Amino acid sequence: MNASATMQIVRSIAELQNILNPRKRGGRTIGFVPTMGFLHEGHLELVKQARRDHDLVVMSIFVNPAQFGPGEDYEAYPRDEQRDAELASAAGVDYLFVPAVNEMYPRTSSIRILPGEQAARLCGASRPGHFDGVLKVLLKLFNIVDPDESYFGMKDAQQLAIIETFVRDFNLRTSICRVPTVREEDGLAKSSRNVRLEPQERDQAPAIYRALCMGKRSYYEGVSLKEVEKIVSNVIENETSGTIDYVKALAYPSLDESFGEAEEIIIATAVKFTSTRLIDNIIMSSIKDEKNV
Amino acid sequence: MNASATMQIVRSIAELQNILNPRKRGGRTIGFVPTMGFLHEGHLELVKQARRDHDLVVMSIFVNPAQFGPGEDYEAYPRDEQRDAELASAAGVDYLFVPAVNEMYPRTSSIRILPGEQAARLCGASRPGHFDGVLKVLLKLFNIVDPDESYFGMKDAQQLAIIETFVRDFNLRTSICRVPTVREEDGLAKSSRNVRLEPQERDQAPAIYRALCMGKRSYYEGVSLKEVEKIVSNVIENETSGTIDYVKALAYPSLDESFGEAEEIIIATAVKFTSTRLIDNIIMSSIKDEKNV
Repeated sequence: MNASATMQIVRSIAELQNILNPRKRGGRTIGFVPTMGFLHEGHLELVKQARRDHDLVVMSIFVNPAQFGPGEDYEAYPRDEQRDAELASAAGVDYLFVPAVNEMYPRTSSIRILPGEQAARLCGASRPGHFDGVLKVLLKLFNIVDPDESYFGMKDAQQLAIIETFVRDFNLRTSICRVPTVREEDGLAKSSRNVRLEPQERDQAPAIYRALCMGKRSYYEGVSLKEVEKIVSNVIENETSGTIDYVKALAYPSLDESFGEAEEIIIATAVKFTSTRLIDNIIMSSIKDEKNV
Repeated sequence: MNASATMQIVRSIAELQNILNPRKRGGRTIGFVPTMGFLHEGHLELVKQARRDHDLVVMSIFVNPAQFGPGEDYEAYPRDEQRDAELASAAGVDYLFVPAVNEMYPRTSSIRILPGEQAARLCGASRPGHFDGVLKVLLKLFNIVDPDESYFGMKDAQQLAIIETFVRDFNLRTSICRVPTVREEDGLAKSSRNVRLEPQERDQAPAIYRALCMGKRSYYEGVSLKEVEKIVSNVIENETSGTIDYVKALAYPSLDESFGEAEEIIIATAVKFTSTRLIDNIIMSSIKDEKNV
């Protein structure tokens, strides 16, 4: 939890491995926080947990072009390395890995990692190839850093579900720590994209989380999940100027529409505003049958 | 090079990692030889090199269902674990990893690794999905074993080229050692499938390597690669009862048909016999222009 005295910024893969490999061999454990930068309290919460659990904390900042589609906001994605470095250092990061694009992708690879059905739903439906790009960069980062544990926020719940599947099915050597979404006072999930909301949109945006909470209450009151989706949609439509991309209730983390075996249910939503698109979700225990209500 | 006194057979992933992880942390290096078993001198040559280079030698034997197509020889693939264990132990393997299918694949994964163009040529053309399965099992095995170096024979030249690409493009933590093809006295490349040749086919099969050598000589005498392919095909057609699947000259290891930048050229062939299909290849330095001849 104590801040690192001297955080080191590393830009090359070889240099990072030269630093980390002997420390790993010396018995130090590594907590890893992969990010796209423009850090907010959500990221710092990941660092805080990694700091508590491990000897060394590595954060990466890399706006990964492979996970942005042609019409998406890769160029416009907010960047501020100097501020990020100050925040990361204060939060206790030991090594900040900030590779250039051609360090991570010196050539186009003919090999792709394709997530299946789990990636075709929710955000995947409107962002084809997005999760391919996420898995690609994560496999590279996991191999470069060789972390004992990697930290991901629950806000990107679909991403987290796919990563957990990847780690489990391919025996990746890192374990995954789920960290709850950090929110503003008014309930809006922290996001690097929040700065791109118009002032009026920023005022409306907390309705997204209010809607999800209302959906959860309704579910526990016995409302069907189809009806829950409608309730959440109505609140967002009535209280914001955003356009709903989806409001969906699915089993978690399988993201199946069959709820038979599910321990948990996610209600997830994505809402488009003028210059950005926000996502949020709420997870709740599954009500298996009437007796459990 | 000295044989291991007591080779240990390990069937579970957890047990293997419990053995290897502390030894890795203690500074021991691991040489890894992944195989499908039914060992021959080609495999033992891989072990010999791994033994020379590393503190610990791990061999896996796993007939990987994911790399066999529906009409292929998964069921018929030869297996003899006891004989393999004796050969492996005598060659100096320390740990023989022999997982059951449901240890490696406890569930169907929705995530796939797709090699691109490089996998669509040569054997890939007639074995769709084959190299997907190879990369899948290797990513799992590399993560389970965490080898410093992994050993592959040049006989499976396309497989080796794709693996080298995978390691390079995804920063896998193992390095790859190319080991030359081991041959019978008469030139036939050693293969677990050779036992499935009819006696008469076995007599003819050395013509495959003779044809490749003739192709190489012709190339150095100035014959074009298109003509070289014809020369090799003619020898195989005239001297064996096998059916040619392909005879192809490509840049190596890119497996491109453009030879501009290539340092090396591969002539690769696959020939179908009654109950099995053999592959072989020869690699030669590229003649870049007339002046270099």
